[in-house]
Amino acid sequence: MRSPICEALGIDVPIFAFTPSEHVAAAVSRAGGLGVLGAVRFNDADELDKALTWLDENTDGKPYGVDVVMPMKIPTEGKAVDLKAMIPEEHISFVDQTLQKLGVPPLPEGEGREGVLGWLHSVARSHVDVALSHRPVLIANALGSPPVDVIEQAHAAGVKVAALAGAAKHALSHVKNGVDIIVAQGYEAGGHTGEIAGMVLTPEIVDAVGPDVPVLAAGGIGSGRQMAAAMALGAQGAWTGSLWLTVEEYDLSAGTGIRDALLAAGSGDTVRTRVYTGKPARLLKTKWTEAWTEEGAPSPLPMPLQNLLVADAHNRMNSGDNPETISMPAGQIVGRTNKVRPVAEVMADLVEEYNATVAGLQGLDS
Amino acid sequence: MRSPICEALGIDVPIFAFTPSEHVAAAVSRAGGLGVLGAVRFNDADELDKALTWLDENTDGKPYGVDVVMPMKIPTEGKAVDLKAMIPEEHISFVDQTLQKLGVPPLPEGEGREGVLGWLHSVARSHVDVALSHRPVLIANALGSPPVDVIEQAHAAGVKVAALAGAAKHALSHVKNGVDIIVAQGYEAGGHTGEIAGMVLTPEIVDAVGPDVPVLAAGGIGSGRQMAAAMALGAQGAWTGSLWLTVEEYDLSAGTGIRDALLAAGSGDTVRTRVYTGKPARLLKTKWTEAWTEEGAPSPLPMPLQNLLVADAHNRMNSGDNPETISMPAGQIVGRTNKVRPVAEVMADLVEEYNATVAGLQGLDS
Repeated sequence: MRSPICEALGIDVPIFAFTPSEHVAAAVSRAGGLGVLGAVRFNDADELDKALTWLDENTDGKPYGVDVVMPMKIPTEGKAVDLKAMIPEEHISFVDQTLQKLGVPPLPEGEGREGVLGWLHSVARSHVDVALSHRPVLIANALGSPPVDVIEQAHAAGVKVAALAGAAKHALSHVKNGVDIIVAQGYEAGGHTGEIAGMVLTPEIVDAVGPDVPVLAAGGIGSGRQMAAAMALGAQGAWTGSLWLTVEEYDLSAGTGIRDALLAAGSGDTVRTRVYTGKPARLLKTKWTEAWTEEGAPSPLPMPLQNLLVADAHNRMNSGDNPETISMPAGQIVGRTNKVRPVAEVMADLVEEYNATVAGLQGLDS
Repeated sequence: MRSPICEALGIDVPIFAFTPSEHVAAAVSRAGGLGVLGAVRFNDADELDKALTWLDENTDGKPYGVDVVMPMKIPTEGKAVDLKAMIPEEHISFVDQTLQKLGVPPLPEGEGREGVLGWLHSVARSHVDVALSHRPVLIANALGSPPVDVIEQAHAAGVKVAALAGAAKHALSHVKNGVDIIVAQGYEAGGHTGEIAGMVLTPEIVDAVGPDVPVLAAGGIGSGRQMAAAMALGAQGAWTGSLWLTVEEYDLSAGTGIRDALLAAGSGDTVRTRVYTGKPARLLKTKWTEAWTEEGAPSPLPMPLQNLLVADAHNRMNSGDNPETISMPAGQIVGRTNKVRPVAEVMADLVEEYNATVAGLQGLDS
């Protein structure tokens, strides 16, 4: 399974694990893959700094990456309070009424927080600054190419830049901006995603960017067979995410609701919707996402307003124990995460099944 | 690339080509794959009989299959004229106005025909009767499991039955009914399709039905890399369709519009919509499909009413030369059919790239 990107980044196997948990990221890196810490949840750059210091100390010197959420074009930013003034009353009352209808309790006194500010350009930029003061080998951007000066900043620090793409033309534009690695984000993937499935998207991007730009396949990869399929399609590795939400090391769920929902969900229990951030993203299909499809429900707002609108609702739902009222990005591979397992076991299974699969293909007469 | 299904059906390579053209089907079978003739366009069973006689005589004794469109549950059928009475006036005038707005000319005097009656159960059943009087090795059903007595009828004639499935639970139910081969129809596939992408769907169905039931992967397969990916996912072969709409042997386009639209389309130029038959199906995205998403457009009717409603419009659009006003099922792989090529060349390329891909996977250190 080793491909040129393994050498380039100093990893044993080209399994990239996007995760908001530094504990999961560290375990993946220690097991020979590349743990990539999602920075978007860190409103305060100091918290990210702390998490990366912990990663530095708990990865046995193995490499890791950091993922930011940064639009290419720098938007005019208001403060959170200004942005909130742009949210229509109709939307606020729809969210309130839906939470009431679904029986979602308020957060305990003193808990709760602002919306996720990592969506804001200035905050994402502080994430990059903090990351580069540590020793990541990769900065990945969930929204495609970061601004060119950010790419140059990373390169000056000897750090590679990866960007997600849902279409070949976007991948080409990323490469033109200086991006080193393309993550081909298929329709089946969790989080922000386009409409072209990985089976078609991966080879299309591989052919578009040419042999000098490594492509990672993202979406639907949770087993060695899928890993082998990704490599057959021309990817140099797999970018995975949902797979790591139910591992033993995952430590970010306040209640049991999220974990129970992820363990129970089948491959058909996700939906691609704009309700999470304003851009199409794949989430678990729950009573919350269904409420937005009912007659009379408002259309989701554009990014970053939608996230500000629903941030408090997400916190209320996701801190609870009810798997039916959860707001959680997840890909179609969630149908395969039915058991809490340690990272090392998931990694070992991926490698073992990959090897068996490739051996099996060799066994078929040509 | 040879898998057990090759032996079972007497074919050289497990490439299954669904096509409405007997000329394309014959060419695929002669090249070592399995041409599968789509019967739905034959309103008159005698026409199908003639096409199959031609196939018998032009396949060098090689095997072929027949594809029907038959719901499991036998619906109460009216005559076409009764069904037409169930179509709301609003829908009829929307279709008329849309054709006018898009500048679609009427058919020449004397041309035109009824809606495609192959959607009707009685007609599909006559297709099976006619098919079994020839020498197909496979009857496939686009709508899943055919009625059990039809499966028994095929088995009594020594013919295998394949059924499309977009979810593991449907595949299991097909197998329970006696279906021999499952076609895992991924989201990216053309025609009737579900929401789960092949990367996730294929291994899910393979694991659900177990090692004794061959699974074919459908959706997004147009190259040897994709064929290798399908086999890595556990499929015994690939079920392909869109790939064969732009081959030299394809003889069913009255005007140049369809061919030009297929050659020009990118992977992002399809849409999953109910406007073709009333059930979700992937089509080329054209001004016609877009018209149905505009404000004020009616919701598509259920099967079989929707097809009756739009059949004449389809005939008018598809006989013309304008690629922007076409109604045509196609999968996301349409982004790769950019040139008219002979069947034998497409087949040879698939096999050659497959072999190179598997050799390449072997070359990666484990």
